[in-house]
Amino acid sequence: MPYEFKLTRRIEFAETDMAGIVHFANFFRMMEATEHAFFRSLGFTIHGHDEGGTTGWPRVSASCDFRGPLRFEDEVEIHLVVAEVRSRSIRYRFIFRKTADGTEVAHGAMVAVCATVDKAVGKLVPVPIPERIRAQIAAAPKELLTSESPLS
Amino acid sequence: MPYEFKLTRRIEFAETDMAGIVHFANFFRMMEATEHAFFRSLGFTIHGHDEGGTTGWPRVSASCDFRGPLRFEDEVEIHLVVAEVRSRSIRYRFIFRKTADGTEVAHGAMVAVCATVDKAVGKLVPVPIPERIRAQIAAAPKELLTSESPLS
Amino acid sequence: MPYEFKLTRRIEFAETDMAGIVHFANFFRMMEATEHAFFRSLGFTIHGHDEGGTTGWPRVSASCDFRGPLRFEDEVEIHLVVAEVRSRSIRYRFIFRKTADGTEVAHGAMVAVCATVDKAVGKLVPVPIPERIRAQIAAAPKELLTSESPLS
Amino acid sequence: MPYEFKLTRRIEFAETDMAGIVHFANFFRMMEATEHAFFRSLGFTIHGHDEGGTTGWPRVSASCDFRGPLRFEDEVEIHLVVAEVRSRSIRYRFIFRKTADGTEVAHGAMVAVCATVDKAVGKLVPVPIPERIRAQIAAAPKELLTSESPLS
Repeated sequence: MPYEFKLTRRIEFAETDMAGIVHFANFFRMMEATEHAFFRSLGFTIHGHDEGGTTGWPRVSASCDFRGPLRFEDEVEIHLVVAEVRSRSIRYRFIFRKTADGTEVAHGAMVAVCATVDKAVGKLVPVPIPERIRAQIAAAPKELLTSESPLS
Repeated sequence: MPYEFKLTRRIEFAETDMAGIVHFANFFRMMEATEHAFFRSLGFTIHGHDEGGTTGWPRVSASCDFRGPLRFEDEVEIHLVVAEVRSRSIRYRFIFRKTADGTEVAHGAMVAVCATVDKAVGKLVPVPIPERIRAQIAAAPKELLTSESPLS
Repeated sequence: MPYEFKLTRRIEFAETDMAGIVHFANFFRMMEATEHAFFRSLGFTIHGHDEGGTTGWPRVSASCDFRGPLRFEDEVEIHLVVAEVRSRSIRYRFIFRKTADGTEVAHGAMVAVCATVDKAVGKLVPVPIPERIRAQIAAAPKELLTSESPLS
Repeated sequence: MPYEFKLTRRIEFAETDMAGIVHFANFFRMMEATEHAFFRSLGFTIHGHDEGGTTGWPRVSASCDFRGPLRFEDEVEIHLVVAEVRSRSIRYRFIFRKTADGTEVAHGAMVAVCATVDKAVGKLVPVPIPERIRAQIAAAPKELLTSESPLS
């Protein structure tokens, strides 16, 4: 059952800042883009409307350690690993590597919670992950997440 | 009746790019922020919900001429002038000036159309500008928009 | 000689706004990304350092007409056409089409000027387009830019 | 000696996403904007050039817990607290509160390292925080950072 996914992107000019490198906030956008591509690869969408209303996956927390810079036109691989699947949320880890030489430039983490719009109160409330999604996503094997791993 | 508005901002790091200057797409975000502040100054909001549904002001067109750069921590004044009020749309002109020395760094234009979500078709359709808004916004005097003016 | 280029992208969540569609400023980022991919396809980079210093292509003007929305996960083709090559600048036209059905959602234009950092004054000054680049980029045939064409 | 700072902002349309709320990556931009305003309030700039070269404060890590949404036109107060001053880096905590009712919508943290461009290798290397800056910034009192505090 899928527990990882890789997305490759080329850094765009508009993602850089005056320090000549990718602005740190854009690493969070790249994590999210990878999560969404992972969902698409399974036939799901991260933000959908059906008879039950609008379902989304708001972020509960996000973090990133920055080891080195990414620059304009660098090609980067974002490696998503599912660290934990809970009843209402999924915890992901991410490793950013330059494809040119495999350098790890950043490690990230993110927790997203499954939620639907409660029409009575007009806001998002957490709900159990639908079975069709839970049945398709597993946590990665423990070995991948040990202290020797960049994912720990 | 109001036909102009000025917003002052300080350039943020995340708005710059690797060329060391404000990325050009951010001038369009600044135009929009000024339009929205203009609306707020009149007691309106650019994106509202009421019994008639959701009303918004999608952009029909936008353009900008860039005369000089803006840099991190520069203070810039964005001068909005209403160039034309039509039944369903408003045309704006913008001048960007560095407040330090008055240098004009960019001239912009934008047309926004009043629209509501048509629930039958599920998309935005143009509608006449509500009277309470039309009654508050006028086109600038012609002199401001002649060929000698940076707004023409 | 190349006078056009096409780039295909999938719309990301972070490119949308609360109206549920791609924020208009992001069309300008997509135009630029297409220009840069066009340069890469010819073996050039839009922002380079060599013995002559740093060369870049700052924008002189940019504009866009919006015909319809792009939404999350839409696939869009951005069709760049070289409208004019001058001694120091290039004028581009762009058509945005949804790949699903070919709908034209936006038409854009942009002028970029070739420039290098003048170290004496510490700013970008326009310079003639290097011959190795001029030799690789041509204006599109007139037929492509007539009034019947969406590019005119 | 200063160990905290507050910045107030109004949420802009372009900061929202199709879920109708501020995109999570923008919380990191707001943290940074607050850090930079804190530096300005002390007479420093976060990115400067002097005889010693270019000094900057690249991010080593950043994290955020999201408790509730921010929406278009919400006014938010970003409360920066200096959690630790080390020889080469500063650790900050952030609380985001809606000014309308004081609701805490997010808690963040960030570590920035003082660095200069080493011209020999062409990249940023950490350096001791200049004395003129260290002399102006202190860690917050422990009470502010205890487990009862939202800053812990």
